[in-house]
Amino acid sequence: MPSISEEAVQVIEEARELLTPSPAERERVASALRRAVERLSDALSDMGVEAIVEPVGSATRGTWLPGSVDLDLFILLPPETPGERLGCIAIEAASRAFGNCEVRYSSHPYARSRFEGLWVEVVPAYLVGSPSEIISPVDRTPFHSRFLSEKIDEELAGDVRLLKAFMKSLGVYGAEIAVEGFSGYLCELLVIRYSGFVGVLLDAPGWREPQTLYLPEAPPVGGYQPAPLIFPDPVDPRRNAAAAVGRTQFHRFRAACSQFLRRPSVQFFRGFVASVDRDRARRVVEERGTRFILAVFSGVSFPPDVAWGQLKSLRARVERELRETGFGVLDSSVWYSDRGYGALVVELTISELPPAEKRRGPPVGSPGEAPFLEKHLSARDTLGGPFIQGDRWFVLKRRRWTSAIDLFKHIVEVARPSSLRGARVSVYTDLGEILSLREEDLVRFLLSFILRREPFLEPS
Amino acid sequence: MPSISEEAVQVIEEARELLTPSPAERERVASALRRAVERLSDALSDMGVEAIVEPVGSATRGTWLPGSVDLDLFILLPPETPGERLGCIAIEAASRAFGNCEVRYSSHPYARSRFEGLWVEVVPAYLVGSPSEIISPVDRTPFHSRFLSEKIDEELAGDVRLLKAFMKSLGVYGAEIAVEGFSGYLCELLVIRYSGFVGVLLDAPGWREPQTLYLPEAPPVGGYQPAPLIFPDPVDPRRNAAAAVGRTQFHRFRAACSQFLRRPSVQFFRGFVASVDRDRARRVVEERGTRFILAVFSGVSFPPDVAWGQLKSLRARVERELRETGFGVLDSSVWYSDRGYGALVVELTISELPPAEKRRGPPVGSPGEAPFLEKHLSARDTLGGPFIQGDRWFVLKRRRWTSAIDLFKHIVEVARPSSLRGARVSVYTDLGEILSLREEDLVRFLLSFILRREPFLEPS
Repeated sequence: MPSISEEAVQVIEEARELLTPSPAERERVASALRRAVERLSDALSDMGVEAIVEPVGSATRGTWLPGSVDLDLFILLPPETPGERLGCIAIEAASRAFGNCEVRYSSHPYARSRFEGLWVEVVPAYLVGSPSEIISPVDRTPFHSRFLSEKIDEELAGDVRLLKAFMKSLGVYGAEIAVEGFSGYLCELLVIRYSGFVGVLLDAPGWREPQTLYLPEAPPVGGYQPAPLIFPDPVDPRRNAAAAVGRTQFHRFRAACSQFLRRPSVQFFRGFVASVDRDRARRVVEERGTRFILAVFSGVSFPPDVAWGQLKSLRARVERELRETGFGVLDSSVWYSDRGYGALVVELTISELPPAEKRRGPPVGSPGEAPFLEKHLSARDTLGGPFIQGDRWFVLKRRRWTSAIDLFKHIVEVARPSSLRGARVSVYTDLGEILSLREEDLVRFLLSFILRREPFLEPS
Repeated sequence: MPSISEEAVQVIEEARELLTPSPAERERVASALRRAVERLSDALSDMGVEAIVEPVGSATRGTWLPGSVDLDLFILLPPETPGERLGCIAIEAASRAFGNCEVRYSSHPYARSRFEGLWVEVVPAYLVGSPSEIISPVDRTPFHSRFLSEKIDEELAGDVRLLKAFMKSLGVYGAEIAVEGFSGYLCELLVIRYSGFVGVLLDAPGWREPQTLYLPEAPPVGGYQPAPLIFPDPVDPRRNAAAAVGRTQFHRFRAACSQFLRRPSVQFFRGFVASVDRDRARRVVEERGTRFILAVFSGVSFPPDVAWGQLKSLRARVERELRETGFGVLDSSVWYSDRGYGALVVELTISELPPAEKRRGPPVGSPGEAPFLEKHLSARDTLGGPFIQGDRWFVLKRRRWTSAIDLFKHIVEVARPSSLRGARVSVYTDLGEILSLREEDLVRFLLSFILRREPFLEPS
């Protein structure tokens, strides 16, 4: 196990300071939370709904990152409440309580309101006696929150903030499909498991996939889906709280911990500033001699997790079809903005193929021989042969796709999954044009795809 | 088993006529053979050498193709004769007998003389009592010849000529490494096995690799090297008389027999006339969009079997290295002329690659990680990364070879096998220039490589 340098300790202490919410912010959050619970409870009793309002989440135990706190209020309803009423209750109660409300969806609708300068998420759930009785997945959240509140004192809350900030600047924070990373809940569990941030930092470099970690009160029970990290949820040990963590993110986190221990820097907590240097990107790509194709989808109307899922499966299909046709794919990536547009980019080493391809025919003397010869002997798209190699017939034929761009366009325009068909799509192949696109965050994504260097390798 | 059409029978009878040596040719060969044996015997007794002169080969049983007969005379010497004397005896005896002599080599030196307008090969061998006692491989030949002379009557001799001519026009006649085909001896064995040419023709389409065929007096004894065709040598059943037959030639012969049965034509015996149409070849290649690279070696001083072997292994190496580097090889071929020059040609689908290649690094957190990062982070030939995918580090690097032509030249000029180093090499990449080369037979080889169509598919 590596040890920690004096320098690293100092950097961590500096980060701890930066990540501690000011007394004023704490006071503002605490009083807003108190008043929000009060208002929501009043609204529910005005509506004649029998319910408990329970605040959950980082605001309840001081684990939020300064300047980015949300209030999470659960409305706990009797199990007899019909499922289709949950959303209505939350929406009506939030509207009454805060005078404004947006509707959001996860497993069922919930409400989001603005109150005293903060976002308040109002989530309806069932009041159940134990995690084994839950009806909707969100019913587990209050149990999580109660468990964490018992374990996380003010000291550990600071460590949770360090870990969250570290993961966030690395891009591995979040269990959503966009990130395939570590949820806030998992961050808190890790800090409990290692009694602090430094323990995680020192141990993670030695994690081996599949790595199992657990709390003494909730050892693994087996039966988990394969995953790089298995952390039994202490409120339901049959559930892997780390199921969302993907292989790349698992190893990126490990590598970043090692790197921090070698070259500590406060950038690991503040975020790595990616310079938006279009000229450098152009030079790099010119040196590489590769080709880029970019599809931009706009007007995507699906929730982010659905859009990300569709973009990822489209990406897998595009890569597979390009490779199977004979084009060379160096890498590809997808990106989605919550403003409703998504992107799929491919970097190619081979983007043009000659018309001729060698096609394997039937074995000599097999029943397929005569039809094969008849078909190809005088066909206009036969460019050589038929001829025999080993025990088989072969023929040179004109291939369907000689340009990767044409095949790419075919897939994203004509053959894309039905779910993306509502979106408009533009395909760009000129790097200059690609780097001149107006969407600054899309260009930032493209630049980091082009440079491809792990940001934590060179903190300045 | 397929049956034979009236039309095929007629074509075969027509070919039989064409392939029957005239009475005048027979008389000339018989008397030349008689007189050559006499002269060689006299020369040996003049030299005081105790030896038997035994004529062998096609001239002794009328199985030569009209216009292309050689006389083969074996000098059978006592087993006590020192090995190094064999060549001298043959050369001196041939010179005395015929007044002229060239020296040739197979397992040991032998002599070749011109006599009455024919070539006479004078081969020294040991006189042994049975094939199990042979000392040099050529000692087996007289046993082969005696065995065949006993089995092949005048009728079957005509069938042997049909089979030899059929195989010759197909390019599968000959056991040498250049052809990897059927020896004259194997042709005669096949005709004996099937009691004639038509039996071979009808049965070959049904051969299955590995196909075992044998004569009743010499069934297989096992222990043969794997081969597509196994035919135990009747004078030594542990030896596979078909060991030289390669897979492609085995199946080409099968396919040609089927094709003949469907569309009989006398061209199958007279040779397929490949038209030397350079313009057609240029058009075909233009349609294919492929690139050709040709190396011509001249001044190759090795015997044909050695030169062919070296060219074939050079070809395998060039194909392998081009593919491993990422270039696309459609096919390649080699060719050797007994005038001392050889050629290696490659047809490429991908002949240029961009500078960047993705290189896999060590697993994240492994002992190789630190040296890998140190090596690539600031290296001038790093074109992207290092970055993590799955559990590994990757980096984009400048590749060594971006042009297939450069790599090809490197292999054939610098890294070619030492045995080809004495030869001069010229590399051509311009198809126009390639097709304008002076050597007519080299161009003919290139044209058939370009068209790649089995000649027997379209007899006119």
